[in-house]
Amino acid sequence: MALLSVLTPVLALLLCLVVGYMLLKSRHAESTSGQEAKVDSRPWVDQDLQDDTEHAQREDGREGDDWVDSSEKQDIPHVPYSATRYPEETMVERSKEFYSLLNQRRTVRRISPEPVPREVIDTVIRTAGTAPSGAHTEPWTFVVVSDPEIKHQIRQIVEEEEEVNYRQRMGDKWVKDLAKFRTNWIKDYLDVAPYLILIFKQTYGILANNKKKTHYYNEISVSIACGILLAALQNVGLVTVTSTPLNCGPQLRLLLKRPTNEKLLMLLPVGYPAADATVPQLKRKPLEDIVVHI
Amino acid sequence: MALLSVLTPVLALLLCLVVGYMLLKSRHAESTSGQEAKVDSRPWVDQDLQDDTEHAQREDGREGDDWVDSSEKQDIPHVPYSATRYPEETMVERSKEFYSLLNQRRTVRRISPEPVPREVIDTVIRTAGTAPSGAHTEPWTFVVVSDPEIKHQIRQIVEEEEEVNYRQRMGDKWVKDLAKFRTNWIKDYLDVAPYLILIFKQTYGILANNKKKTHYYNEISVSIACGILLAALQNVGLVTVTSTPLNCGPQLRLLLKRPTNEKLLMLLPVGYPAADATVPQLKRKPLEDIVVHI
Repeated sequence: MALLSVLTPVLALLLCLVVGYMLLKSRHAESTSGQEAKVDSRPWVDQDLQDDTEHAQREDGREGDDWVDSSEKQDIPHVPYSATRYPEETMVERSKEFYSLLNQRRTVRRISPEPVPREVIDTVIRTAGTAPSGAHTEPWTFVVVSDPEIKHQIRQIVEEEEEVNYRQRMGDKWVKDLAKFRTNWIKDYLDVAPYLILIFKQTYGILANNKKKTHYYNEISVSIACGILLAALQNVGLVTVTSTPLNCGPQLRLLLKRPTNEKLLMLLPVGYPAADATVPQLKRKPLEDIVVHI
Repeated sequence: MALLSVLTPVLALLLCLVVGYMLLKSRHAESTSGQEAKVDSRPWVDQDLQDDTEHAQREDGREGDDWVDSSEKQDIPHVPYSATRYPEETMVERSKEFYSLLNQRRTVRRISPEPVPREVIDTVIRTAGTAPSGAHTEPWTFVVVSDPEIKHQIRQIVEEEEEVNYRQRMGDKWVKDLAKFRTNWIKDYLDVAPYLILIFKQTYGILANNKKKTHYYNEISVSIACGILLAALQNVGLVTVTSTPLNCGPQLRLLLKRPTNEKLLMLLPVGYPAADATVPQLKRKPLEDIVVHI
């Protein structure tokens, strides 16, 4: 008891230190896991705002929810908007033609090695770059790989990850049929396709003063650009495999020497379909299953 | 000192309780903020997999990263893929025409109240529904609102949220010029546009046995579908305002009676541009700023 009595100040000090450390740690955890919470205490808002936009910097202001472009803040002059106005019958006809074109789009894994004009690739990417983006930040980088050696390194990185995925899945349930799945992680189209387009989202920008610039809704913006890219590819008769190899993102980013604010969103091997390409006979949901009129 | 000596066991007990509580709390924080960590211990994977896909159910298996459609697992027959093969000059020409069309797309806030053929709206939505999706889950619902009363209620919900956004922002820096910002949260196009298209992502599906079905990459998939929808609207001469009113998602979901697995991703007011519509004179990044060839 006498010993304890002597130790009491030490214990008290220890208590203070431990509690202080834990408090600091838990606060840090809160501030990284729930950045939105500081701005607004309504829990349903926080829950819905799970976008990986980095809100490092609020200097440029919260834009609200429609994608006001930054030019509007800076009082950039407005010009009349001139649009082509089609007669109703033409509208109906054009909408059906475009539907018919895009309804033929399929994911095709057997891609021909034949060369594709680079001008076409540049133009479809330019087209993707017309997509809207939060606060007109245009937070996308399209890395086009045609170098066979780099394509092969990409293939190795992706296949290694895929093998892990498939083996984990098989470890759970499908242990017996290794050979069947094997075809799924072997992606020879990554060697064969004349172009691989890797689309990076810029999770934040860098301002002239070296501070971070928030790229609101960057993932949604870049995904919209990818949708337009897929339409543009279909429009010229090229095929691709829609893939989001997020697991390989960091390795591929290093391989392609992209800066740390960029994260891989999509990898699209692009080319003509191989002569013997096949696709599964799948159906799309009918209109009434995807639309509700009110 | 005698008093402290008596209190020592109490202090020790207190120390244990506090440390135990803090440990529990910090563990809880870790388990909620990093669900992926349980599946895979590679930190760079966890960091990159920030998608709000609900991984409630792994019964249908991890699909790997390319969007293998579920039909392939079920040995659905494959059919030859037949594509239109254009001569190179035609490809170049088609790619330029499509770029020219989409490069004219702008966000237009002055929308005409003139009616738009419903058939066109249905066809552009059908076109959006041709988008690829993780494991071919087609995780989208397009709610088309033409009822004036419901449109007005939507406007009220959105404007209320926007006012909060703008006032918070002004609270920070721009306190003086209320009137200037007021135009930003007043969205009369939500009353005026003949159609409002609200696009919901289905964060998970419901299987026949009432269990949850994982919708991998649902936000990316639905955003891609939105990109195709924007292209289809531009193709028929209609305009919209790209907006992601995520803050109002839960209220709008209730108003439109959508189930809890659906979350609002986008709200697009759609119509012809008003005769006097203007747009800011903004520029898009040149090709060399968005593309890297390797």
